[in-house]
Amino acid sequence: KRTFKIAVLGGDGIGPEVCDESVRLLQEVERRLAGVAFDFQHHSVGVGEYQRNGNALPDSTFAACQSSDAVLLGAMGLPNVRYPNGKEIAPQLDLRERLKLYGGVRPIRLFNEADTPLKNFGAGEIDFVLVRESTEGLFYGRDAVLDPDADEAFNTMRISRECTEQVCRLAFQIARQRDGMKKVSLIDKANVLSSMVFFRKVFDEVAQEFPDCEADHVYVDASALFLVRDPKRFDVMVTENMFGDILSDLAAGLVGGMGMAPSGDIGDSAAVFQPSHGSAPDIAGRGIANPIAMHLSAAMMLDWFDDDNCKVGAKMIHAAITRVLADASKRTPDLGGSLSTSEMTDEILQAL
Amino acid sequence: KRTFKIAVLGGDGIGPEVCDESVRLLQEVERRLAGVAFDFQHHSVGVGEYQRNGNALPDSTFAACQSSDAVLLGAMGLPNVRYPNGKEIAPQLDLRERLKLYGGVRPIRLFNEADTPLKNFGAGEIDFVLVRESTEGLFYGRDAVLDPDADEAFNTMRISRECTEQVCRLAFQIARQRDGMKKVSLIDKANVLSSMVFFRKVFDEVAQEFPDCEADHVYVDASALFLVRDPKRFDVMVTENMFGDILSDLAAGLVGGMGMAPSGDIGDSAAVFQPSHGSAPDIAGRGIANPIAMHLSAAMMLDWFDDDNCKVGAKMIHAAITRVLADASKRTPDLGGSLSTSEMTDEILQAL
Ligand SMILES: CC(C)[C@H](C(=O)O)[C@@H](O)C(=O)O
Ligand SMILES: CC(C)[C@H](C(=O)O)[C@@H](O)C(=O)O
Repeated sequence: KRTFKIAVLGGDGIGPEVCDESVRLLQEVERRLAGVAFDFQHHSVGVGEYQRNGNALPDSTFAACQSSDAVLLGAMGLPNVRYPNGKEIAPQLDLRERLKLYGGVRPIRLFNEADTPLKNFGAGEIDFVLVRESTEGLFYGRDAVLDPDADEAFNTMRISRECTEQVCRLAFQIARQRDGMKKVSLIDKANVLSSMVFFRKVFDEVAQEFPDCEADHVYVDASALFLVRDPKRFDVMVTENMFGDILSDLAAGLVGGMGMAPSGDIGDSAAVFQPSHGSAPDIAGRGIANPIAMHLSAAMMLDWFDDDNCKVGAKMIHAAITRVLADASKRTPDLGGSLSTSEMTDEILQAL
Repeated sequence: KRTFKIAVLGGDGIGPEVCDESVRLLQEVERRLAGVAFDFQHHSVGVGEYQRNGNALPDSTFAACQSSDAVLLGAMGLPNVRYPNGKEIAPQLDLRERLKLYGGVRPIRLFNEADTPLKNFGAGEIDFVLVRESTEGLFYGRDAVLDPDADEAFNTMRISRECTEQVCRLAFQIARQRDGMKKVSLIDKANVLSSMVFFRKVFDEVAQEFPDCEADHVYVDASALFLVRDPKRFDVMVTENMFGDILSDLAAGLVGGMGMAPSGDIGDSAAVFQPSHGSAPDIAGRGIANPIAMHLSAAMMLDWFDDDNCKVGAKMIHAAITRVLADASKRTPDLGGSLSTSEMTDEILQAL
């Protein structure tokens, strides 16, 4: 039996609640799959750790992430708990940077026309993947020190050849595997920013390695408009960290909001899977959080393991979620329904 | 008779076509207003100037802008004509910076439910103003020199107290004047970027000067989601240059696209009014560009002149456009209609 060691980091707010439900779902999948075992190991991270020990990402947790096959992460941070410099506790950013998870993969798929705010889109008619570079870009300078007396503040955007090549290659590989247009749209601002001219240059070089795929350029502002007026135009999008942060929330909004949007932060030797949503302290502890984004993230993890059994498991979860969501009345309160987090998971377990 | 000197900069692509139509509209408004004269002076700018003289914004044109009461600008730049550094000809950015037009005011209004891609929004039900700081932010570093051999490239985001105070004050003043919730939403990324912590600090200080207004904080990623799922949440938004660039295109997408989105770049002693759209070389010269964004920009200009007659003129144009657009069949081809640029303007002239 092949065993996969999975570090489970529940985190803050609704994080642990949705994480526990995904572990329950994965355990059921494990029972049904031949030849695969999941070894879940829970580790502490986030605001609680910060308040107890001053370090939101303890060394032991980080080491466990490094030595696991993958990390399953709930959500981190709370708006009311901040570092002395005013910023929020966001150890997921440290994980991305320290584990070199250059590829923030955010699949966007509409499961039911009831969930989209857009007119005239049915199930499956919004379907693309946004790949966000997750280790540099404008986040590179996030730790710039703020002089309290200064009359100006700066952050630096960095685009490196290495990360850009990696993330563009990942985007083309995803396009190649998908059952889509095999088109990768680079989202940049090369008309104005010199670092984006560089991003485009490297993208164009990488595109040469994928002659079977179409390479497309869209300015970031125009891409935001296309997302609301013509989302079918996109198959795979690849972009800088900050742009990807903005566009992936927008894209999630098109298919039901953050509760429906999974993500995987992928590196060459590690990966973290987490829902795109935050810790939602307003509903934490009430058992009403939407677990779909978390479950879809768990499915992404299985698909990412280089293992045929796990790939079957990923398909099982995806198919079950598709079946459940086809009934628009099966929803948690964020989407106007009345199912609890565990009732929603039960539905998926039944549909497996 | 009070005379307003208006510098008309048609620019590139469809710029001159839509600009000419707005001049025609303004001349009719002038005929109907008592006590106001418009002195239009045309000046050359953009790709043509760059190709002829190597300077897209000739000194004489810049001087004319400085000495005019306002600048009416069509569109600038062409994707196929670039500076040697790869970036596009965008003298509007130089105008914003050199004339210190810190406030990029972009009103978003839905005139007809037919124009929005969103379900369940009728005329007037999407109605907010996005104010984009237009002289610094991530555009501050746009001229960074790219070393062709380097393996990385940088841009710098700058947030200064001065520009931030100015643009936030402008946003609150607009909220105060509007017939809305009197709410200003700061769109930032203060959870991650230290420059945005500074932006928020200055915003909060300025908010104290406006106790009659509500001050709100929204992260930029969340704001993109709210724009598609709950745009009624916004009254006035204020944000950094790059964020504003992205969000204003997204917002324009909600009300009919770039052809429906006006803008004004406002400073303490100068202002430039231009449609948010680009030069659209694919349709240039065919007389089919949507002139609405340009006409709404012209109305913004009249409203900005500190003159009661002009304010009446602004209301006249706005009311005429509202009347014409109430009929969803009166549209240019960008919105599925068949009216030409001048036929659309004729409709508005008749409705004045
Ligand atoms: C919570 C925040 C630090 C994070 C980010 O900005 O990357 C989140 O918005 C995301 O998209 O994963
Ligand atoms: C054309 C481009 C330089 C410009 C900008 O980025 O500001 C445009 O997108 C805008 O929004 O006015």
